[in-house]
Amino acid sequence: MARRIGIKDVAAAAGVSTATVSHVLNRVEGKRISEETRQRVWKAAGELGYAPNGLARGLRMQRSQTIGFVSDEIATTPHAGRMILGAQEAAAAEGLVLLLVNTSGDAELERASIDMLLQRRVDGVLYAAMYHRTVELPDALRATPTVLLDAGSADPAVPSVVPDEVQGGYAAVRELTDHGHRRIGMIVQTVDLPARQGRLEGYRRALAEVGVVYDPSLVAAETAVPFNTVGGDVEAGYRAARRLLTTERRPTALFCFNDRMAAGAYRAAAELGLTIPGDLSVIGFDNQELVCESVHPQLSTVQLPHYEMGARAVAQLLALTKSPGRPPGPGMNELLPCPLVARASVASPSRL
Amino acid sequence: MARRIGIKDVAAAAGVSTATVSHVLNRVEGKRISEETRQRVWKAAGELGYAPNGLARGLRMQRSQTIGFVSDEIATTPHAGRMILGAQEAAAAEGLVLLLVNTSGDAELERASIDMLLQRRVDGVLYAAMYHRTVELPDALRATPTVLLDAGSADPAVPSVVPDEVQGGYAAVRELTDHGHRRIGMIVQTVDLPARQGRLEGYRRALAEVGVVYDPSLVAAETAVPFNTVGGDVEAGYRAARRLLTTERRPTALFCFNDRMAAGAYRAAAELGLTIPGDLSVIGFDNQELVCESVHPQLSTVQLPHYEMGARAVAQLLALTKSPGRPPGPGMNELLPCPLVARASVASPSRL
Repeated sequence: MARRIGIKDVAAAAGVSTATVSHVLNRVEGKRISEETRQRVWKAAGELGYAPNGLARGLRMQRSQTIGFVSDEIATTPHAGRMILGAQEAAAAEGLVLLLVNTSGDAELERASIDMLLQRRVDGVLYAAMYHRTVELPDALRATPTVLLDAGSADPAVPSVVPDEVQGGYAAVRELTDHGHRRIGMIVQTVDLPARQGRLEGYRRALAEVGVVYDPSLVAAETAVPFNTVGGDVEAGYRAARRLLTTERRPTALFCFNDRMAAGAYRAAAELGLTIPGDLSVIGFDNQELVCESVHPQLSTVQLPHYEMGARAVAQLLALTKSPGRPPGPGMNELLPCPLVARASVASPSRL
Repeated sequence: MARRIGIKDVAAAAGVSTATVSHVLNRVEGKRISEETRQRVWKAAGELGYAPNGLARGLRMQRSQTIGFVSDEIATTPHAGRMILGAQEAAAAEGLVLLLVNTSGDAELERASIDMLLQRRVDGVLYAAMYHRTVELPDALRATPTVLLDAGSADPAVPSVVPDEVQGGYAAVRELTDHGHRRIGMIVQTVDLPARQGRLEGYRRALAEVGVVYDPSLVAAETAVPFNTVGGDVEAGYRAARRLLTTERRPTALFCFNDRMAAGAYRAAAELGLTIPGDLSVIGFDNQELVCESVHPQLSTVQLPHYEMGARAVAQLLALTKSPGRPPGPGMNELLPCPLVARASVASPSRL
């Protein structure tokens, strides 16, 4: 490997002091250095290929060794941490760091943030949603390698990494049927999201597998107010569970759209004098530990693979930047599995 | 404002094409460009002060308009999001972005991460702990403007922003005494942290204010296993609360070290047939919404000001970078207030 060119080399070549080199190259103002000397220093630096630091190296390579991480609502979700960590560790393994911007869902702020990233010549951008949904890629990112993280696009040419909601819903309900449950209710919120569609589809598949005919009266939907808040989800889960658990032939188990709705189901069960899991099995979705381990008994659930999504999105981005000619295809729309996390809220329906 | 110098200006001054300018300045290999032409381009670029992009501008100013955000355990805490958001929004207001690295508490990784940031010439560094504790500033950061975030240092010359644990503990217990409680238990974990010391001190102050003599038998400490996990804290809270609630003269209210321990106290109360807040008032600390709003009734608590800490740390850092000569003093060790968040778990001890 060639010896790294230092400021001393430039100084020697230009016949000036290292201080002068520094002043010229850093364009320090108010120093009395003749125009002729300045030009000699620039010429020497150029000839020697002097790279004072990472910035200069980035400039030379036209690569900054940074990845922009654009997210909509980083603060409002505890998922953000694991997604960022997954991306950050995968990036660090390649000597890259994350430049983080948050848009709070504001279009104007998003434009400004993306400009800021492009101006810094990021090698690529992760465009992250804080819950799985369909987004439109901002025009400003069309010319930059970009991977959607926890978000899909109507345009399949935009690469993405999302959780496999269908498989996750299937895994959750399979845990219930494996314990012998057949009369299984599902509680969901009403907003139409990929997560809602997918988890419902997984519910139906798992039931079909054990020969149970889908019964829409066992699916209770309630609107979470406000949308996507803890309190809103818990309350909607409470109402939906109360509804299902006060029917004549109540279900022996509930599959809840997320852990927060499951916490509401716990409250409904307690009010009705039903013990979990003796009288009622409950399974959630997301694996938000703060919920799952705060309720008693601890909640069995299915994990959203946030860490893995962050890491896979970086891997996809690196593949894109390394072969910029390769057109993204369907293989770049990646579904990651959601594994079961069994705790203490599922048992056999022995008492019924 | 002067017109921005573009690549065309450099090309015109050097008498070459813009493509040649680009090839030379970006040091594209394998182009047949004579040494004489290369030197002419570098000279012209230098004379005109050509700044092709943000990277080059950063190089010229020796400032990258980025702030390094070094954290130890971003993924394991849902607090991280709000702290990062506070820092990110305060930075964005000044046209700065955050370069994010996570060390997972590993000294080797920390050294490498900090090197990576310094190489990118960050304007300064926020060194963040994900819970309030005392840290030693890495040597590599001694020469760079650095502010500790949610962490204190044994060396008061290192600026820091931390929550005011004493005031927070006082606010929590004051909420109980304001409702008429006098026999107030406290449950804590056993590890000696600034948060533990401060919240205990606040507890004693609030009691003293209403003339209640501190009674150490009302403070129950249990070890959380594993440390700093949801399940460990909930279980420790459960054990500590059971202990206090089964004494002959049980307290009418509990101040819990954090919301997770409070969730354990809810379980102990339910087992003992005590309703909250009718038979027992409970107050937590941290305001982790996923816990506070998942339990029933919703938990009153005191908020850790994570967003504000992130924002204030950036403000301190900007002050440091703007007046690098100013020595940090005690004024730079900033305590932020922890406001009360009243929900539904505190009432007057009417039934007793």
